[in-house]
Amino acid sequence: MPTRDELRRWDLADPLAPMRAQFVLPEGVIYLDGNSLGAMPRAAAERVRRTLDHDWSQQLVRSWNSAGWVDLPIAVGARIGRLIGARDGETLACDSTSINLFKLLSLAVAQRPGRKLILSDTDNFPTDLYMAQGLAALLANGLELRTVGMDQLIDTIDERVAVVSLSHVNYRNGALYDMAAVTRRAHEAGALMLWDLAHSAGALPIALADCDVDLAVGCGYKYFNGGPGAPAFLYVSRALQQTAATPLTGWFGHARPFDFVPGYAPADGVARMQVGTPPILSMVALDAALDVWDGVSLQQVRDKSIRQCELFVDLVEQTMPGVFELYSPRDAAGRGSQVCLRHADAWPIMQALIADGVIGDVRAPDILRFGFTPLYLSYCDVYDAAAKLGAIMASGRWREPQFQARAKVT
Amino acid sequence: MPTRDELRRWDLADPLAPMRAQFVLPEGVIYLDGNSLGAMPRAAAERVRRTLDHDWSQQLVRSWNSAGWVDLPIAVGARIGRLIGARDGETLACDSTSINLFKLLSLAVAQRPGRKLILSDTDNFPTDLYMAQGLAALLANGLELRTVGMDQLIDTIDERVAVVSLSHVNYRNGALYDMAAVTRRAHEAGALMLWDLAHSAGALPIALADCDVDLAVGCGYKYFNGGPGAPAFLYVSRALQQTAATPLTGWFGHARPFDFVPGYAPADGVARMQVGTPPILSMVALDAALDVWDGVSLQQVRDKSIRQCELFVDLVEQTMPGVFELYSPRDAAGRGSQVCLRHADAWPIMQALIADGVIGDVRAPDILRFGFTPLYLSYCDVYDAAAKLGAIMASGRWREPQFQARAKVT
Repeated sequence: MPTRDELRRWDLADPLAPMRAQFVLPEGVIYLDGNSLGAMPRAAAERVRRTLDHDWSQQLVRSWNSAGWVDLPIAVGARIGRLIGARDGETLACDSTSINLFKLLSLAVAQRPGRKLILSDTDNFPTDLYMAQGLAALLANGLELRTVGMDQLIDTIDERVAVVSLSHVNYRNGALYDMAAVTRRAHEAGALMLWDLAHSAGALPIALADCDVDLAVGCGYKYFNGGPGAPAFLYVSRALQQTAATPLTGWFGHARPFDFVPGYAPADGVARMQVGTPPILSMVALDAALDVWDGVSLQQVRDKSIRQCELFVDLVEQTMPGVFELYSPRDAAGRGSQVCLRHADAWPIMQALIADGVIGDVRAPDILRFGFTPLYLSYCDVYDAAAKLGAIMASGRWREPQFQARAKVT
Repeated sequence: MPTRDELRRWDLADPLAPMRAQFVLPEGVIYLDGNSLGAMPRAAAERVRRTLDHDWSQQLVRSWNSAGWVDLPIAVGARIGRLIGARDGETLACDSTSINLFKLLSLAVAQRPGRKLILSDTDNFPTDLYMAQGLAALLANGLELRTVGMDQLIDTIDERVAVVSLSHVNYRNGALYDMAAVTRRAHEAGALMLWDLAHSAGALPIALADCDVDLAVGCGYKYFNGGPGAPAFLYVSRALQQTAATPLTGWFGHARPFDFVPGYAPADGVARMQVGTPPILSMVALDAALDVWDGVSLQQVRDKSIRQCELFVDLVEQTMPGVFELYSPRDAAGRGSQVCLRHADAWPIMQALIADGVIGDVRAPDILRFGFTPLYLSYCDVYDAAAKLGAIMASGRWREPQFQARAKVT
């Protein structure tokens, strides 16, 4: 095990260490929940302030042209596209992940008439399953969501499946799917492949085009640090775009929205997947938040993430043997940028840890979840977080009554 | 015609005049486009700054509980509900108007199985028509959008109609439907009634519950001043709520979203109409923007709006006789809070006017649109705007080449 002094040397040698200065973080807090809500980039706050002080209040409606508001879904989408291995013109920043799932699931089943299955993972993020259930109920044409465990998934893909809809990294335990292999198998069976990148985009290298992925969605407020509820993104491969029909045919996806004609006609390419007016304050924050990625390689981020996750697992196993069950895959190659631990008292333990300045979260019923964000987390942070957790477990302090009360959002 | 001195006395006597101090407006600008993007309330900017400086950057993910982020769609919806005559628990702030139209149109046609028509106005706002077209294409069950002109609308409602979907105030000419009469006729025919309040909410008194309206949507960024692309709102009458199914079954509309269970179960009441994570920066701006309505009566706003619109029409007719065709209804009772003028050179005339500090907008092909927002507009502003328009028309300055170039957003 490296000592804290050795970890200080790791931090000094870390090429990503200077990135932390681009974020505003509270004093005395070690933030291990950037996989839920990313920390605030200074550039995001500055851009929002300028949008208030100049673009909205002074330029008013003119900013749709002069500040480029109308182009943000395409422009921000393009910046995200470069971070997930998409080609130009395949991505868009818009709406929420849930709504984007609805668009792309609907698009996918329309591309595979006669196939009546959406195949997913039993432990996929709930909204991914709910949106598929809602689409099936709406269409009422025999379409059905089928879910199986991760271990059976690839063998369940057959010619009845219209679309395989999976999260690249599982939100609960961090397990990572092999994007290339699953996409290949989906295509062999004639199905389309939809990846939800919420827990992988910005955390590890993704090669959508190289993997020949058809469809993807993802989140702006986790590893992309776009702010609470930031616009989500979507990806439609070039090959699908000309026949890709969205059910949400809003005016922002129209070929000529400002002609105000009564008949819908889709814009060219991925632009047609827009629906209504984008939430500009949230959108400009996401746009500016992406500045931090200029010159950063995702492989660099991934390398540091693995080193940090490994360090944390090692510290937990060696300093608190037998206290927790490791809920994430032990092999770093099969894991995203998070480490999850099981304990029957997960909730009060996490509240005690948060009170001590280490913020993670809990997933029902018994999972402590720790996210690692190499852009603003040091190796010493990881060491200190494990030390604080160790002290709480040694003292039993989590049993105090103030840590028992449940919150609405976990 | 009142003189400018007389109008100054009107302003001094105007009980709404002090409201202007709650907004930030540029020097030397008369803003007649608050029906497109409302001006910035000081409270909205302050709230966004606090969200950056404290809630996001310092409290981070904890703000979902401690800053009440998770409750904002319900809380902001409730504040809007009180401004449109809804009962408690009938409204929600969420998504865009387009997406809310999709939810409610889908809900409506599911409530009227066997009826295959969505009836609307040929000149309804395009996205209202597009979303209906998209839903019909998706369901592919014979559902059809039928549109007729405003003058034929009420007589076209029959027992084949599932839902009548109309804008309360027409975006283009400001014509105002009689909400009570049309809703009554829809119900006589057994149809549901959906009103789009984008151009009436915050502009005039609305009594959704008293008119027995079933469904409504509306906009947060026009007369509610919530900022560019602010979240929209929706209304579902209590009578419909228990059977109201949304096709967009996202985790935020789940009965227990943070239990993360794999099966969708709708939340009680209107809360089920939520979908994904709300865009918080945009949502807090809207929430704080609604502060300006505390103690303001919509009847007061309407009275001043009518007086301002009448003044503007009188000034245009008397100082520029024969120059423009009045495109809005001449009778104030049949008009929202806007005045529209037709002229073959609408575009360059408006650009010349904007260059002179009077901001309105243009709707293709030949309509100059002027919105009146009594909370931050004085009677002298109206006089000065008409005087500047008169000077441009007298000089022919709009014919100069710099006013000809078209912008993307009009």
